[in-house]
Amino acid sequence: MQSRSHTARSSNRLVLGLDFGTLSVRALLVDAHTGAELATASSNYSHGVIDEKLPGSTRRLSPETALQHPGDYLESMTEVVRRVMRAAKAGPEDIRGIGTDFTSCTVLPTTTDGSPLCLAPRWRNNPHAWVKLWKHHSAQAEADDINTLGARRSELFCRSYGGRYSSEWFFSKLLETVRHAPAVYRAADRFIEAGDWIVWQLCGEERRCISAAGFKAMWLYPTRSKSTPAEWAYPSRTFFAALHPALANVVEDKLDAPLIHLGAKAGGLTPGMARRLGLRAGTPVSAGNIDAHVAVPACGVTTPGKLVMILGTSTCHLLLGEERREVEGMCGVVRDGVVNGLWGYEAGQAGVGDLFAWYMAHGIPASIAAEAKRAGTSVYQLLETRAAALRPGESGLLALDWWNGCRSVLMDSDLSGLLLGATLGTRPHEIYRALIEATAFGTRKIIEAFTSKGVAITELHACGGLAQRNPLLLQIYADVTGRPIRVAASEQTCALGAAMHGALAAGLHADMKAAARRMVRPSTQTYRPNPIYKRTYDRLYTEYSRLHDHFGRTADSPMKVLRQLRAEAFRSR
Amino acid sequence: MQSRSHTARSSNRLVLGLDFGTLSVRALLVDAHTGAELATASSNYSHGVIDEKLPGSTRRLSPETALQHPGDYLESMTEVVRRVMRAAKAGPEDIRGIGTDFTSCTVLPTTTDGSPLCLAPRWRNNPHAWVKLWKHHSAQAEADDINTLGARRSELFCRSYGGRYSSEWFFSKLLETVRHAPAVYRAADRFIEAGDWIVWQLCGEERRCISAAGFKAMWLYPTRSKSTPAEWAYPSRTFFAALHPALANVVEDKLDAPLIHLGAKAGGLTPGMARRLGLRAGTPVSAGNIDAHVAVPACGVTTPGKLVMILGTSTCHLLLGEERREVEGMCGVVRDGVVNGLWGYEAGQAGVGDLFAWYMAHGIPASIAAEAKRAGTSVYQLLETRAAALRPGESGLLALDWWNGCRSVLMDSDLSGLLLGATLGTRPHEIYRALIEATAFGTRKIIEAFTSKGVAITELHACGGLAQRNPLLLQIYADVTGRPIRVAASEQTCALGAAMHGALAAGLHADMKAAARRMVRPSTQTYRPNPIYKRTYDRLYTEYSRLHDHFGRTADSPMKVLRQLRAEAFRSR
Repeated sequence: MQSRSHTARSSNRLVLGLDFGTLSVRALLVDAHTGAELATASSNYSHGVIDEKLPGSTRRLSPETALQHPGDYLESMTEVVRRVMRAAKAGPEDIRGIGTDFTSCTVLPTTTDGSPLCLAPRWRNNPHAWVKLWKHHSAQAEADDINTLGARRSELFCRSYGGRYSSEWFFSKLLETVRHAPAVYRAADRFIEAGDWIVWQLCGEERRCISAAGFKAMWLYPTRSKSTPAEWAYPSRTFFAALHPALANVVEDKLDAPLIHLGAKAGGLTPGMARRLGLRAGTPVSAGNIDAHVAVPACGVTTPGKLVMILGTSTCHLLLGEERREVEGMCGVVRDGVVNGLWGYEAGQAGVGDLFAWYMAHGIPASIAAEAKRAGTSVYQLLETRAAALRPGESGLLALDWWNGCRSVLMDSDLSGLLLGATLGTRPHEIYRALIEATAFGTRKIIEAFTSKGVAITELHACGGLAQRNPLLLQIYADVTGRPIRVAASEQTCALGAAMHGALAAGLHADMKAAARRMVRPSTQTYRPNPIYKRTYDRLYTEYSRLHDHFGRTADSPMKVLRQLRAEAFRSR
Repeated sequence: MQSRSHTARSSNRLVLGLDFGTLSVRALLVDAHTGAELATASSNYSHGVIDEKLPGSTRRLSPETALQHPGDYLESMTEVVRRVMRAAKAGPEDIRGIGTDFTSCTVLPTTTDGSPLCLAPRWRNNPHAWVKLWKHHSAQAEADDINTLGARRSELFCRSYGGRYSSEWFFSKLLETVRHAPAVYRAADRFIEAGDWIVWQLCGEERRCISAAGFKAMWLYPTRSKSTPAEWAYPSRTFFAALHPALANVVEDKLDAPLIHLGAKAGGLTPGMARRLGLRAGTPVSAGNIDAHVAVPACGVTTPGKLVMILGTSTCHLLLGEERREVEGMCGVVRDGVVNGLWGYEAGQAGVGDLFAWYMAHGIPASIAAEAKRAGTSVYQLLETRAAALRPGESGLLALDWWNGCRSVLMDSDLSGLLLGATLGTRPHEIYRALIEATAFGTRKIIEAFTSKGVAITELHACGGLAQRNPLLLQIYADVTGRPIRVAASEQTCALGAAMHGALAAGLHADMKAAARRMVRPSTQTYRPNPIYKRTYDRLYTEYSRLHDHFGRTADSPMKVLRQLRAEAFRSR
């Protein structure tokens, strides 16, 4: 656990942001009037990502499985809340509101009282009883079937998801459970986003946020104007019954719960949870939200046309718009889904920080580590310096950034990574740069998907770990997209965004615009494109696009065949 | 320098084989009656491969440059000859003949007395004055022009080279010199294969072997039966003049010298060289030869239909045939070019051992080295064990083995490596296996190129470093090709083959068949294909072939564009 504190005190106007990421939870105590960040702490989940064996089991999990232990969320949360309270010397009465955000779509089955199914001895050996993490990627067949059926029936949800509902999302994961573990499906009283589950744990009420419902669970925007949330809806029984007979009543049986707006108060902290966290019972808790989404207001973005890139393990792209457009491969478009009063658009890249971390862990030779040591620097810094000295095109390399599948714009988890152009002279810093460039090209593809459909993008904003730590990446993104990029002032944008929602739930600000004016510091760092590099990148992007379409848009893509052969090899073991 | 010796003595019937490889020269003392290998030693060239800066210079060489220092050949040769003589306790009078083999096409410019131009102060800063090593790869534009002109004029040589004369070969390298360093071209009295140059150094006579002339320098097989070597010919003055005016008289001015058959005596050791090496003046020296080619008789292959794979830094495939056929991407077909009396076919893969060495040096993470250390094994052995435990298809990876360009069947140095199918779960042993598989698919492509044109292949033979040290590779080659593979008994096949040619030059055997009967021990190790794995590999090979054609057979291949952009980036520095 790491923690950091400021000396300033701002009694009685503090809000607590809890940011549940892929590997850890972070707490941030913020002054709701000034945005001053008083203390922060993070704690890694004990079980991390469960992708090889279930706890206590020796059986190897199938490839692409990514599960989590729900107990980790509570344990790590308790630790970080107590830590920031101590660090800021804050008392329970100082905390006016709590906001949370969570990775999504991360789903778990529970009993009626919210107890995770995987903690019951009967189910603990069944992978489907556990939390399926956003990057659990074994439900591509289910997503394909959902998309085929959806298209055949012209279901409205298809148009909200750029035509391709993802294998990462709620009903893909649920259908996988129905097919591969029907007993788990029957035994579960609820299937719920982990972000809604944590709110349920905090305030004892099952309240679901419209954001996760709309972006991940097919819940639909109104088709008539002035309709109220109560009139909006999930797809029909007929659709679900056609998808799988057991799913006919899935909404009524397993999901139905009050849907609430972002920043609304879901409830007050329960006495039990208040004791556990060392806070006051009844402290307002905001509606759950999605980690990347809360970063938008925390970047100071509350108006249309500003693309916010949350650069982390994966990258999320968020954009506000006055109108609803259908954009290829977008992850969703939801009215009031990011900031109330506007359409929220989401797109994303499934592997960014994860891709660089993979290369650092599995591709950097010992010789580079030794060189870095001799030079008194880190491996990362050595690579960064060497990669930064290259010109666009100089490595002769080009990559497709699909190590974790392709989210936008192709929305296909069966796609995989490609590295082209390697020679015997190729060196690690060149590969590293090619991987960064690949993610930049992927981002450009997303930008063009929006602008080609008339969704304006006038500014780029960046936040998240990579935005703070990786200047080369931001410069390459600026050069590849040809647009300046503003970096968020806060280093904890998600946790700050969660805290801003906590402030709204506590009634400390009238709306998100007002909260942003008070709580967000202006950006002080902007990366500007180099027009000469941009020209070379335009040519590399042409090649990227050819590879993208060749491998990503064809039904008989070698990537698909390889995935099939891998599955057969795994089954034949 | 390493050396090894046997205690047996076989006075007065010893022959010396000198195998000049890419990084070192190896000497082998062999009993010409029994094939017993009495002593061997190798010595690395002091300057190795010169690909970054010329000795004494700080100027960076352009990409794809690969040069050598001719002094290294003499220095290392002296060292190893003296070493094996001492190790075998042999006297000068014991050595009956000397045979050599050399990497090819490795070319240098010299004065009339054979002095390398690069050693003259005036020329030492010009890269084109140095030895251009076989893998010097910056003459693709020249090869393209040669092929275009050759095709337009329907030159006969085109048909000897599978339609594509390589950038690695004699006149591509020469044309590069003419274009980029015309003064070097004018100053050079001779341009000569290093393998012929070393023979010249040994016996003081400029004698050129028909093998290098035929396989690398467009020298043509007879078009009438019973023609004698004197009547065979290089292309016409008209052709060379059309290629470049300065080349009109290249044959008469820079090349013309007696061409002699393989195993023929080029001359006797000069007194000076005899003193230097500690041998007897006048000892017969055989005609020069190509490293891979001498391995054919050393595998016991002197008859048609047996494909010999010399698996080393690169792989050479050699095959004998009764007839001359035109096979796509073959490196050449020359009557008497490998074994007298038969047509010799050559094909090859430009990066094999080099590719694995690249991955070992630049792709294996420190964590694997640490694991290997903990397990008390080598990194190589750890990778090998883990890779061997995988089934075909299980890694989900597929590669194109073009890290050093593609020799057969596409004959294009501008092609480059490709790795497809990587995910965040991909691990180094999987990439390692995929690289081995890629070279196996490349070999299968070559086999099919021959058999589809009616050149029979009934057996596969393997020799060279990888054949001795890498059982996983041979098993994968057997599984991918569906054919058993016999491994040569000798660990020094090339040096043994060189020694066999020395024995012929000394008149110790009537012909190569007789030499092979006496000097080659039978194979004791055969790898047999697994039919189940073969079926999976058939499917992977289909995908390999699609990638092969998509990236290798299209004029606008992304690989070509990347190469172009890399050249531009380099020039803009």
